[in-house]
Amino acid sequence: MTKKTDKSAPKSAIWGGRFEAGPSQIMERINASVEFDQRLYAEDIAASTAHCAMLVAQDIISPADGEAIQNGLQAILKEIESGQFEFKPSLEDVHMNVEARLGELIGEAAGRLHTARSRNDQVATDFRLWVRGALDRMMGVIQALQEALIDRAQEHAATIMPGYTHLQPAQPVTLGHHLLAYVEMLGRDGSRAKDARRRLNENPLGAGALAGTSFPIDREMTARDLGFDGPAANSLDAVSDRDFAIEYLSLASLLAVHLSRLADEVVLWSSTGFGFIRLPDNLSTGSSMLPQKRNPDAAELVRAKTGRVIGALNTLLVVMKGLPLAYSKDMQEDKEPVFDAADSLELCLAAMEGMVRGLSANEYAMRDAALEANSGAVDLADWMVKTLDRPFREAHHAVGRLVKLGEEKKLRLDQLSLEDMCGVDPEITQDALDILDMDRALAARASFGGTAPKNVLAACTRARERFLKTEE
Amino acid sequence: MTKKTDKSAPKSAIWGGRFEAGPSQIMERINASVEFDQRLYAEDIAASTAHCAMLVAQDIISPADGEAIQNGLQAILKEIESGQFEFKPSLEDVHMNVEARLGELIGEAAGRLHTARSRNDQVATDFRLWVRGALDRMMGVIQALQEALIDRAQEHAATIMPGYTHLQPAQPVTLGHHLLAYVEMLGRDGSRAKDARRRLNENPLGAGALAGTSFPIDREMTARDLGFDGPAANSLDAVSDRDFAIEYLSLASLLAVHLSRLADEVVLWSSTGFGFIRLPDNLSTGSSMLPQKRNPDAAELVRAKTGRVIGALNTLLVVMKGLPLAYSKDMQEDKEPVFDAADSLELCLAAMEGMVRGLSANEYAMRDAALEANSGAVDLADWMVKTLDRPFREAHHAVGRLVKLGEEKKLRLDQLSLEDMCGVDPEITQDALDILDMDRALAARASFGGTAPKNVLAACTRARERFLKTEE
Amino acid sequence: MTKKTDKSAPKSAIWGGRFEAGPSQIMERINASVEFDQRLYAEDIAASTAHCAMLVAQDIISPADGEAIQNGLQAILKEIESGQFEFKPSLEDVHMNVEARLGELIGEAAGRLHTARSRNDQVATDFRLWVRGALDRMMGVIQALQEALIDRAQEHAATIMPGYTHLQPAQPVTLGHHLLAYVEMLGRDGSRAKDARRRLNENPLGAGALAGTSFPIDREMTARDLGFDGPAANSLDAVSDRDFAIEYLSLASLLAVHLSRLADEVVLWSSTGFGFIRLPDNLSTGSSMLPQKRNPDAAELVRAKTGRVIGALNTLLVVMKGLPLAYSKDMQEDKEPVFDAADSLELCLAAMEGMVRGLSANEYAMRDAALEANSGAVDLADWMVKTLDRPFREAHHAVGRLVKLGEEKKLRLDQLSLEDMCGVDPEITQDALDILDMDRALAARASFGGTAPKNVLAACTRARERFLKTEE
Amino acid sequence: MTKKTDKSAPKSAIWGGRFEAGPSQIMERINASVEFDQRLYAEDIAASTAHCAMLVAQDIISPADGEAIQNGLQAILKEIESGQFEFKPSLEDVHMNVEARLGELIGEAAGRLHTARSRNDQVATDFRLWVRGALDRMMGVIQALQEALIDRAQEHAATIMPGYTHLQPAQPVTLGHHLLAYVEMLGRDGSRAKDARRRLNENPLGAGALAGTSFPIDREMTARDLGFDGPAANSLDAVSDRDFAIEYLSLASLLAVHLSRLADEVVLWSSTGFGFIRLPDNLSTGSSMLPQKRNPDAAELVRAKTGRVIGALNTLLVVMKGLPLAYSKDMQEDKEPVFDAADSLELCLAAMEGMVRGLSANEYAMRDAALEANSGAVDLADWMVKTLDRPFREAHHAVGRLVKLGEEKKLRLDQLSLEDMCGVDPEITQDALDILDMDRALAARASFGGTAPKNVLAACTRARERFLKTEE
Repeated sequence: MTKKTDKSAPKSAIWGGRFEAGPSQIMERINASVEFDQRLYAEDIAASTAHCAMLVAQDIISPADGEAIQNGLQAILKEIESGQFEFKPSLEDVHMNVEARLGELIGEAAGRLHTARSRNDQVATDFRLWVRGALDRMMGVIQALQEALIDRAQEHAATIMPGYTHLQPAQPVTLGHHLLAYVEMLGRDGSRAKDARRRLNENPLGAGALAGTSFPIDREMTARDLGFDGPAANSLDAVSDRDFAIEYLSLASLLAVHLSRLADEVVLWSSTGFGFIRLPDNLSTGSSMLPQKRNPDAAELVRAKTGRVIGALNTLLVVMKGLPLAYSKDMQEDKEPVFDAADSLELCLAAMEGMVRGLSANEYAMRDAALEANSGAVDLADWMVKTLDRPFREAHHAVGRLVKLGEEKKLRLDQLSLEDMCGVDPEITQDALDILDMDRALAARASFGGTAPKNVLAACTRARERFLKTEE
Repeated sequence: MTKKTDKSAPKSAIWGGRFEAGPSQIMERINASVEFDQRLYAEDIAASTAHCAMLVAQDIISPADGEAIQNGLQAILKEIESGQFEFKPSLEDVHMNVEARLGELIGEAAGRLHTARSRNDQVATDFRLWVRGALDRMMGVIQALQEALIDRAQEHAATIMPGYTHLQPAQPVTLGHHLLAYVEMLGRDGSRAKDARRRLNENPLGAGALAGTSFPIDREMTARDLGFDGPAANSLDAVSDRDFAIEYLSLASLLAVHLSRLADEVVLWSSTGFGFIRLPDNLSTGSSMLPQKRNPDAAELVRAKTGRVIGALNTLLVVMKGLPLAYSKDMQEDKEPVFDAADSLELCLAAMEGMVRGLSANEYAMRDAALEANSGAVDLADWMVKTLDRPFREAHHAVGRLVKLGEEKKLRLDQLSLEDMCGVDPEITQDALDILDMDRALAARASFGGTAPKNVLAACTRARERFLKTEE
Repeated sequence: MTKKTDKSAPKSAIWGGRFEAGPSQIMERINASVEFDQRLYAEDIAASTAHCAMLVAQDIISPADGEAIQNGLQAILKEIESGQFEFKPSLEDVHMNVEARLGELIGEAAGRLHTARSRNDQVATDFRLWVRGALDRMMGVIQALQEALIDRAQEHAATIMPGYTHLQPAQPVTLGHHLLAYVEMLGRDGSRAKDARRRLNENPLGAGALAGTSFPIDREMTARDLGFDGPAANSLDAVSDRDFAIEYLSLASLLAVHLSRLADEVVLWSSTGFGFIRLPDNLSTGSSMLPQKRNPDAAELVRAKTGRVIGALNTLLVVMKGLPLAYSKDMQEDKEPVFDAADSLELCLAAMEGMVRGLSANEYAMRDAALEANSGAVDLADWMVKTLDRPFREAHHAVGRLVKLGEEKKLRLDQLSLEDMCGVDPEITQDALDILDMDRALAARASFGGTAPKNVLAACTRARERFLKTEE
Repeated sequence: MTKKTDKSAPKSAIWGGRFEAGPSQIMERINASVEFDQRLYAEDIAASTAHCAMLVAQDIISPADGEAIQNGLQAILKEIESGQFEFKPSLEDVHMNVEARLGELIGEAAGRLHTARSRNDQVATDFRLWVRGALDRMMGVIQALQEALIDRAQEHAATIMPGYTHLQPAQPVTLGHHLLAYVEMLGRDGSRAKDARRRLNENPLGAGALAGTSFPIDREMTARDLGFDGPAANSLDAVSDRDFAIEYLSLASLLAVHLSRLADEVVLWSSTGFGFIRLPDNLSTGSSMLPQKRNPDAAELVRAKTGRVIGALNTLLVVMKGLPLAYSKDMQEDKEPVFDAADSLELCLAAMEGMVRGLSANEYAMRDAALEANSGAVDLADWMVKTLDRPFREAHHAVGRLVKLGEEKKLRLDQLSLEDMCGVDPEITQDALDILDMDRALAARASFGGTAPKNVLAACTRARERFLKTEE
């Protein structure tokens, strides 16, 4: 794992009030990015390895120099991964740290590695590779959360709970149906990640500082070696494009919004007012004094991290807004928001998977809440339309009168007698009362995408097929 | 065109200071969305038309009622498009305005149109259709701007200008090459729009209020009629999903950033400091007193509108963050940011196309600026690597000494004598001096994606193929 | 009231797909701001009136011309306020519309009004005056909401409800205490508005286009006439500064966050899960079918509008970021976000005042929820510290064991016997049981700022003094 | 200096792809804030010291316990500042780390320190103290930058440069005048910081978890000891308020926008197109190959950091939006955006001060640019108004004709002959030609706030008085 340079030390100078550092220290602080861009070490070495192989293949450097460089790069990789490598802020960034160490290890040949490339195309390549890796990880953890949701949805395909609008119970749904709504959202998130991956997968290497190069390089070869689909078409664009990072943050923000919606429901449902679920011990915090208290800390933090990811997106949009071509130093600010958003999201997805797998549902509380809400009213109105051929709006008003009657008698709609019902519409029959049985009503909502338990089970099967099957 | 309700009138009550409106006026102000959602009228009528046809096909309503409804809807469409329809805030939204008018026109049968649907799936359908239309328009105007850029790039495939890093000249590039960088950015924008369109193209209609319906509806049929690829899989998700709007605003923000970068260069290049371009009269403003003054107003506004689009994205992310399922009234705030961003972008794209087509380039000023910057230094260093087998870093330093020598003699690098050169590295030959000829140097940067004029011409051809060819 | 130009008409050209408008139409669309800046008409005329009076006083124009101008301006004001004035997009903005009309009314003298000023200082002055007015209105409606909250807090100074952390009941508080927390937040909002008003209250008029003027103007005089504290100190800053608008949007965003927190609690408390409050009929929407349903639409929209105000702040920060001095056309985008945020907030504050005044509290539900939560545990622990001299952490653990014991016996802490208690700590006495009486416990939390009912009443009195007393 | 826990280690588990950490590791990652909140150590110990002294003074704990605690706290402070203290993530946060160490050092008495307080009021107090310190530092560095600007403005009170609108030269101004515009902006920033400091300066300590306490605490005493103006008025608000952090980020964002505007001008002016300034060597980066190249890295990074600060503001607004009272775990996300913004800004202010003090102005280039732009046109028009009593608009057009005539003759306005001038308006005299002398014209712009050199000198004096004088 990477050895972290101490972030606090160089900053100390400015913490004491007036900035007492001289210009050179300020400049080192401003220029040095190695503190955060060292996270690109694996990508940097992979890109140098591919570049070196190509230089040899194209006779731009000698096979002997090439071999020395490759051995040196592998040695550096081992040093970094074993924690022995010391990143030096005075060498500015990960690229110069690696190149300087290469010089120490192999001497003059190290100076040939940088032939026909520039830090501009180098960093564009490294960062692109890193974001591609982050997208791949994201797709994996999204699927893991989808799988947890589908498993629990299948288990609760017939568990009744109130479906809400305006946080008021509107119609009964099943818990399984509710959980599958999030599977859809996550499915779109995964799909966006896949599209973004395809779009970023172009090789900037070979664009040079901004204009291309006069060396006879082979950009197809480095593209192949690095898993890119091909070379980026325009050198100015290749070095000044950070679309892939902004697109990553855009889809991350939307994913974060989805997680925040689910987290908000976890907080709500585990509050004593609702009491629908109980979080697992290991993902909530208790109180030594109030042992029954179970704070949904993990869910609250998932909800809060949304702000952070949206903030990161905003940051990078603002940085890039209005920059003339090609490279400007402003673009050094591209990495930290992406790293931070990726770390936040990976943690949130894992926490959410743990919560979904570990929560236990209080089925009685959910069913009671659905019953109390007279949520069968719409079914009765639909019955009147279908059976008595009443226009929809008229049926709607008749049921309203029945609910009101129930309120006066302190009865739920399904507790009214047939006689009561006929007082409002004399053609109502026993069939209508049967329709008010919540389980039957639920089973009837069998239109495609509806909440009927058998639909939910079928939807679980389809969701596994659509989202969890690995492509060959 | 739609007749606009007067926006200022109902607001007047609060402009005078203390809010003097009673609760009912406040509530009307809060609830009424018809002021802006009337823009959905065409989509609303299309969705109702498809829904009605399906209800008839499924024997849920009679053919006679169906025909009356269809005729009524067509009549309303004509009323709206001819400006005769009066939208009433007291009827809240476009849906209720249309339904109420339908009742006036055809009587009781109007009440049957709302069978097996709800305003929740209705507005989700309408808005989705509108955003789909906005994406289609966006793809069109993006292509139009790409075409303008490619045309001008082809014309200026060999026009030399300085390529900048840090807004300092770094290496010569061609104006054509520079313009093609934007073609790449716009190509990714168009590709994102295409992906977003595919992802949104699911039919929410039939999800009902949130749980589906017990009527035997056919969601495949309405999907087909409305050009959707199929029905949305989960009813709760279908009514509470606004991903398509956020994804629209995300890609709009990135597109706006690209336009802002180009606009910033237009402002810069047309400033007297640079003097690279002259904007067309009809897209700049002059001054009656300073006739030579030519303010790049259009470019400045394109740059500024970026803020607006990013603001709109931010707005909708914040609105949706943490909302429990399914529908909450908060979601009524989804439309205005999208409408505003779409209007802004369509105007910006058109203005930018006009500027690109109409600007005239001052080729002398561009070439001079490139020459002054000694931007051939990197070519000389590359020559030393290739011809004299100097390590890259060593060649780099030698050229540095030559540039310094030139500064002392007030000469550009290409004006130094061979003798001067040999003083720094005795193996330098006449070939090296030839390499400093800017046109030759430029022609040599022929790696794929590089700025050599013949590359630029080839890139124009490929760009037409990749971006402008209509798919069959 | 202002006559609104039809917003939809000029836009129609781009709605049909490809932008078919010619460059001149695009340019008119881009340049014309009169559609929105006509809202500045009163400020524009006030500033012209003050400028004209100063020009006469300084002998820059003749008294006769001055009188003609003043009469003309008053006539125009009447035309606008009576709705007879037609704003023309072809005249670009409110300033040119007014000046053109002045020319029609009084002829050549109209041309002298613009002596020693420029549209740059004119619009800076107008917009500053408008924002000052918006701040004044805001301070008024904030106070109105504070008054409503204090009135209800006084009424409910002793109404017990659970105090929440993590949306879990933690300790009992009173509803009055809870409402007063919002009075504090709003107090800071009002204080920020007052500071912002003081800071913006400098006169830009006289800065000219950017450099000042050679006319012997008197900026102190126009400052006095317009209620400014004095002239702005630097002409370049005066015309390019939009800090006042950003500061307005900053404080508006924080105010919106406060309103959103309160609105979220209204939604929560009126959900069936909590059932703490019932919203007034005129600020909630029902359902003809489910008459007991009471959707908190107004609260949800208040919550949602937060996104809009934050979006507006973001917009203007992005617009101004990186603009070189002095005036750039980008700054034309400053007004709409401010107008929109002001309209949104004034509506939200009024709606919130209505909800606070109109909601009825279900005191039984609140008290029950507090009791169920064993929220007296901390009081028992404090008693053990105070009376038995136990270290805080030890007392904390002992109470934890008691709560657990209660859970096993299905008893609340206050229902345990003294014997049960002594089993955990033998020194516990009857006094400890008394402390568990919720009303006594509440009354004991009498530290300054604490929730004891007598504290709450005193805090109400102080709050009236601090926030509602008009300064002399 | 604080010893930093290794940030990379606990994160490693999720970097390899699928999250393999178990729930307990996830929960530790989510809960542990000590990685960043250790920056509050000095404030935490200060608050504990004040709390302990008050507990003793109020007879809540014994003097002996109090003394032990105070000695322990001082020992811990020394351990931390000497780098010997090990912060443990398993102890979650800075508060628990300090308290646990206190227990190790002094035994049982440590358990009495937490009497009558809670982590909720503790963290609110610590963070408020930290932000207060950040505001104090900010006010200091703002003044330092103002002083640098005023010094350079005084030096260049008469240095002519073009004043720009739309990045086109409009009228001549002086460099001193231009720099003073930023002094005004920074003056408002400092004023906002002062207001924010006053507003935050209330003591949350004593609010307990959320409801106050039944211990007879003295919140006035702790307020005094910690430099607060008094206790916060409402306990619920005291623990759930993060206004002070949002207000900090709001004013930081506006300050960042100002710095970004200045930085953008530094980039522009040091580009070869303008060539107005030369940055000091130690605040720009060169190239070993292109020694004359001088990249304005520092300025570019200042410009870019704006995005970061705006992103931080956005983050915290989103986090707090809609949180119910009182404490939610979401609020743990409040510190990092503030720390990051403070670090960014302090660095930017220092870098900017260095650039302002170190840049050298190319007076010839500036003057030439002003001359070329015919920027005296407005002076000639003003002369015609003043001397010939022409209406402003008429004079304006006459000068336009003269400029056009000059263009045809390839002459600047000040190079036209009196004869040429009289061809357009026969009453023009030699006086008018004199007015076109740029230095005279500049000197004439002597209205308050205008750019006349003597005005600029006076403005420097006033600015020192207004902004740099330390209050007694």
